[in-house]
Amino acid sequence: MCTYISTSADIDASVSLGHNCVIQDKVKIGRNCEIGNNVVIHAGTVVGDDVFVGDNTVLGRQPRSGVTSIRKTGEQPPLIIGNRVVIGTGVVIYAGTKIGDECMVADLAAVREGCLIREGARIGRCVSLECNVVIGKNTVIQTGSHVTGDTVIEDEVFVGAEVCTMNDKYMSRRPEVSLRGPYIGKGASIGSNASILPGVRVGRDAVVGAGAVVTKDVPAGEAVVGNPAAPMRRRTSLGNEPTDKIDG
Amino acid sequence: MCTYISTSADIDASVSLGHNCVIQDKVKIGRNCEIGNNVVIHAGTVVGDDVFVGDNTVLGRQPRSGVTSIRKTGEQPPLIIGNRVVIGTGVVIYAGTKIGDECMVADLAAVREGCLIREGARIGRCVSLECNVVIGKNTVIQTGSHVTGDTVIEDEVFVGAEVCTMNDKYMSRRPEVSLRGPYIGKGASIGSNASILPGVRVGRDAVVGAGAVVTKDVPAGEAVVGNPAAPMRRRTSLGNEPTDKIDG
Amino acid sequence: MCTYISTSADIDASVSLGHNCVIQDKVKIGRNCEIGNNVVIHAGTVVGDDVFVGDNTVLGRQPRSGVTSIRKTGEQPPLIIGNRVVIGTGVVIYAGTKIGDECMVADLAAVREGCLIREGARIGRCVSLECNVVIGKNTVIQTGSHVTGDTVIEDEVFVGAEVCTMNDKYMSRRPEVSLRGPYIGKGASIGSNASILPGVRVGRDAVVGAGAVVTKDVPAGEAVVGNPAAPMRRRTSLGNEPTDKIDG
Repeated sequence: MCTYISTSADIDASVSLGHNCVIQDKVKIGRNCEIGNNVVIHAGTVVGDDVFVGDNTVLGRQPRSGVTSIRKTGEQPPLIIGNRVVIGTGVVIYAGTKIGDECMVADLAAVREGCLIREGARIGRCVSLECNVVIGKNTVIQTGSHVTGDTVIEDEVFVGAEVCTMNDKYMSRRPEVSLRGPYIGKGASIGSNASILPGVRVGRDAVVGAGAVVTKDVPAGEAVVGNPAAPMRRRTSLGNEPTDKIDG
Repeated sequence: MCTYISTSADIDASVSLGHNCVIQDKVKIGRNCEIGNNVVIHAGTVVGDDVFVGDNTVLGRQPRSGVTSIRKTGEQPPLIIGNRVVIGTGVVIYAGTKIGDECMVADLAAVREGCLIREGARIGRCVSLECNVVIGKNTVIQTGSHVTGDTVIEDEVFVGAEVCTMNDKYMSRRPEVSLRGPYIGKGASIGSNASILPGVRVGRDAVVGAGAVVTKDVPAGEAVVGNPAAPMRRRTSLGNEPTDKIDG
Repeated sequence: MCTYISTSADIDASVSLGHNCVIQDKVKIGRNCEIGNNVVIHAGTVVGDDVFVGDNTVLGRQPRSGVTSIRKTGEQPPLIIGNRVVIGTGVVIYAGTKIGDECMVADLAAVREGCLIREGARIGRCVSLECNVVIGKNTVIQTGSHVTGDTVIEDEVFVGAEVCTMNDKYMSRRPEVSLRGPYIGKGASIGSNASILPGVRVGRDAVVGAGAVVTKDVPAGEAVVGNPAAPMRRRTSLGNEPTDKIDG
């Protein structure tokens, strides 16, 4: 087996545990969980019931800033994972984060410290959530998207693939200026490969077209497309349907 | 060694196997393969001859849907890998997929269930292929591109880096509508960071410029650029050469 | 412990080593390093003092070309890592690369052979550096960006998230033509999700807006935005401030 389990870990007898795992001090794993091979679970992590964790995944690691990093984070409280969560293969999730019931975090995604992922949210393959991100209930973040630090995404939002969000208007030239992530309102849809600039607010049920570069706030219910993004005035063949169509 | 090998696995005596591997039931590995360290090969996976598998790679895992996933996939037949295939480090490939002879799948790529990757295709670093994708012979998908579910890419296609394809015109707002991936014809070239919208057909030998947002079908041999993409009418300095130049 | 250490490896007594590691022949690890679990360090790799390496990371692997790869690389000299370097979880770094003191390489990043990463540079999560890339001192490459082969990025450059660089003007149609990566001058800022075409030179202190598609050289100190990118003539609300503002 070659699995190492700390004597202070609390693993329910019903848990299935793969080969070559490392379960550190005071980790708690609930009932009927299925943990893959080569999984590392760091000290204090709490895993709920009926959770699936794929091979080669690392849960609850502490942040470790580089010498030249501007934003350094200290010791975090343990990672907490709810019930009926599915976590993929090769995933990295930091300490200081909470993942609600029935969420999914797909293969090769990275979730940093201080995030809150609410019930039923789905984080796609190769997505990165930077620190202090909030993801609302049943929100979907598709493959390869990058959610920058301090972004808030409300409930029932659709974020397509390879969407990029920003929080630093001055691109590191003014480290004294505070960083500000985007805010995405409930029910909004962000098309794949869109870029959302620092501090931009996308209103409730707004639609951002695929590949749009959103430099200004988008009012609730409005649809924007293009680079820079501008309101969509009539029915077009863009494939990004205006609001009336989508809600119809 | 700490490698676990199921007694029902069939591994040729010529295979070189790393440390801390997990080889599950009925896995078959052909002659002269070189398998790295910390590799997990799930039940039933068939690996051909002269295959290289990098460290920390996971082959043949079954899909595992989240509680709120719209598209749930059942138990898949085993992953089948041909001869002289090179697979990188930290790769994840699902059951239910077939990989032809002489293909390459680079580091940290993820390939889901139901894919067919034909002979000589090269899948780049950090690429994700979603379910039921077809990749043609000698086609190249460069680093970080996202190929959405049900996409068909014919032979000899070049897909640059960070290209994004889509299959859901309604961005999750109409789950009852069927999803439709793009179709890319033989010999087409898709520039890096292009976005290809749901159901779009790119014709044979067509060229999509870097960063283009392709919202409509592209006729065979045509070159399109921009957001939204439009035909390129004359020799420009775009760096995305029109067809006559490229074929010249 | 299940850690394998070659008898020819030279590991300082002060090193903390995780479970299930593989340390191959002639690896040298300096003082006070902290190596995670499931880490593989390939033959000959040299790790300096006070280095942190996260779980499931692979250091110093040799390149392995696919059968149909155009660019094949031979055996590389060992990977060399300086002092006070922080390397994340699930990272892959090849042989033939040098990483200077006080650099950071974040989770799930991939760095190929022949790269030179100079002192204090930070390579973000899920970034891929292809072969023979130079990254200057204190330069930052944010999450998910793709730096193509032979790119040179000078000191103090900011590259945002999901930036895409290219080196093949003919998109694989003319394999006889030599590849040419971009050149990014000292102090330049590249906005997130920008695309930089093959051989483009971005001058010193130039600014490329988020989502811009840069097809031509950008003079020193100039700011460009849009698709295709064009100079920014006046104060706009693009969120990508012109040079005078940024330097102000």
